[in-house]
Amino acid sequence: MNFKIHKSDQDTSARTGLITTDHGSFETPIFMPVATSAAIKGVHNKDLIENASPKVLLSNTYHLYLRPGQNIINKAGGIHKFMSWENNILTDSGGYQVYSLSANRKINPDGVKFKSHIDGSYHFFTPENVIDIQRNIGADIIMAFDECPPYPCQKNYARKSMDLTHEWLKRCINRFKINKPIYKHNQFLFPIVQGSIYSDLRKQSAEIIVNHDLPGNAIGGLSVGEPHELMYEICEDVCNILPKEKPRYLMGVGTPINILENIALGIDMFDCVMPTRNARNGYLFTSIGVIKIRNAKYKKDTRPLDQDCTCSTCLNYSRAYLHHLQKTNEILGSHLNTLHNLHYYLELMRSIREAIKNNMFGEFRKNFYIKLGSID
Amino acid sequence: MNFKIHKSDQDTSARTGLITTDHGSFETPIFMPVATSAAIKGVHNKDLIENASPKVLLSNTYHLYLRPGQNIINKAGGIHKFMSWENNILTDSGGYQVYSLSANRKINPDGVKFKSHIDGSYHFFTPENVIDIQRNIGADIIMAFDECPPYPCQKNYARKSMDLTHEWLKRCINRFKINKPIYKHNQFLFPIVQGSIYSDLRKQSAEIIVNHDLPGNAIGGLSVGEPHELMYEICEDVCNILPKEKPRYLMGVGTPINILENIALGIDMFDCVMPTRNARNGYLFTSIGVIKIRNAKYKKDTRPLDQDCTCSTCLNYSRAYLHHLQKTNEILGSHLNTLHNLHYYLELMRSIREAIKNNMFGEFRKNFYIKLGSID
Repeated sequence: MNFKIHKSDQDTSARTGLITTDHGSFETPIFMPVATSAAIKGVHNKDLIENASPKVLLSNTYHLYLRPGQNIINKAGGIHKFMSWENNILTDSGGYQVYSLSANRKINPDGVKFKSHIDGSYHFFTPENVIDIQRNIGADIIMAFDECPPYPCQKNYARKSMDLTHEWLKRCINRFKINKPIYKHNQFLFPIVQGSIYSDLRKQSAEIIVNHDLPGNAIGGLSVGEPHELMYEICEDVCNILPKEKPRYLMGVGTPINILENIALGIDMFDCVMPTRNARNGYLFTSIGVIKIRNAKYKKDTRPLDQDCTCSTCLNYSRAYLHHLQKTNEILGSHLNTLHNLHYYLELMRSIREAIKNNMFGEFRKNFYIKLGSID
Repeated sequence: MNFKIHKSDQDTSARTGLITTDHGSFETPIFMPVATSAAIKGVHNKDLIENASPKVLLSNTYHLYLRPGQNIINKAGGIHKFMSWENNILTDSGGYQVYSLSANRKINPDGVKFKSHIDGSYHFFTPENVIDIQRNIGADIIMAFDECPPYPCQKNYARKSMDLTHEWLKRCINRFKINKPIYKHNQFLFPIVQGSIYSDLRKQSAEIIVNHDLPGNAIGGLSVGEPHELMYEICEDVCNILPKEKPRYLMGVGTPINILENIALGIDMFDCVMPTRNARNGYLFTSIGVIKIRNAKYKKDTRPLDQDCTCSTCLNYSRAYLHHLQKTNEILGSHLNTLHNLHYYLELMRSIREAIKNNMFGEFRKNFYIKLGSID
């Protein structure tokens, strides 16, 4: 994997760069749409590519392991072929899902026993088999198996959990070295900083994972319920330790404002279900703020969703039509809304990159907040 | 409206033609995808146009009247603008839906009082207000308000119901003459032959509606549960009376075989929810027969859904992936399946037209049945 920094902002830690893998290059800062089960919910890839040209998707090891199962993905020739996606893919390790989705889970030093949220069957994830599964899935960037503690979390538990994550990281790296890629492209392993909201633990965790000298570094366990200010503090502490010359990935974040602020702290990669999940509920991001399209005031509103947006939803359909689709539960509503929200997120990233390149990041950030408050 | 017959089959009553309205031309025989509430369920128009280029859609007056309501469609400038559809649209009159969807309905000579299946509110449809609503909606082809009796139905009731439909037709025509189009395009009214499964009633009904000399003629009340052979018999009786020089529309039909057989009897236009509804349930039409994609045998099947199909679903995805999407209830599954099924239906129509033009309809019909039985 190659990462080149192109431009650094003069006033903040924001920067633009380019990540290259065997499935092509993508500019950073980047937002990765979430394709949980090897499909982005609500949208056809082709429409998404035409509207927002995403260069990298995230998919979930936990979900893929349960359905369709690693053997079927292997038989298909890997996830790229299975889901017909030619660009980059990142898979998370399943660590977060085991804790957030599985009803019963039992953690021991060896791994985690968990109950499937789908059929109640029992499974066991270890650092080793999570690497094996991710080899079978075949994403370009894969994640180390971590424990993701909840918020709030006692410091004592946070420390133990962090130590376990560090132990598991060593085992992931060992397995990753032994078990080679299955398909004809390289895979790159990212470690995950944990430590809950405790600054000293976070710093310690960052120091430890940096020592492994992997091609990129991730921050997990944030945006799990803590106040945003606390998220930014922790992120800043960690970014100060994570090396500049490697991409920094903040997992599961977040709102457009979260993304903007964390870019200022030096983050390069983001993923979040927010644009897709919220789209299906009619919660739409626009340049002037959030529009909840189910609201009766949009019933007769023949204007486009966002006057400034160039996505195919805004160019072809009215708020009244989107309102109608939402009220009638038409699948097309999910489709048009998701296209718009992902276009919004990816266009936001493009604008931020553009601003950084033109020494306008501070200006952009200021104007972004002004415009966001002008909703009609 | 202009209808030109291009070619008639030598052995059957099948023919090809061209219907032209202010929203363009379409070749017949044609299948109209159903956009019940001003949206085709499960698919983005743009993808559908690229894959199957449908030239005319059907939408439902009953559904549109309840949601979003005629005033909103009027404010949007008519249904074409509301749903961003530039080609032809046909609306049915709501007659069928009032009988099939509404829990409580009371028919009297003036019209039908019915209870909304959505919120239980009461409404009253008359031949006059159904024309007014269809003027507000603004489809190119609109249907007279009829009573659609159930199957089975006593002959006495069928006769009374048919007589009422004929009375209502006169009132529809009068209203249609008085209440002019609202938008800048013409609308064309089709009457509907009723008479249940009684050949003498059907013939009588056909004679009566033909006398009104409207631009096209429809057959309603078939494919409501009667045996297919009976449907064909009735259709043949009626087609022998409906004038050759006007398009014949068989409402709500049907399976690929039903369509093929009714084309042989002289039908030019079809609509049915089957390709779209079945797609969402994983029931997929292919050149070799029906594939129920949820079936476990497709779990590891890396072949395309239909080897002979050129739709984007078959070109890009495997049966295993479609099976996975169906099992995980991914919206993308509905999308890919619907694209395929509509492509199948519209491609079937295109092939039939091609066969008729080349004096090969008999040959096509024979081969169609042979191939359909070869499912693997």
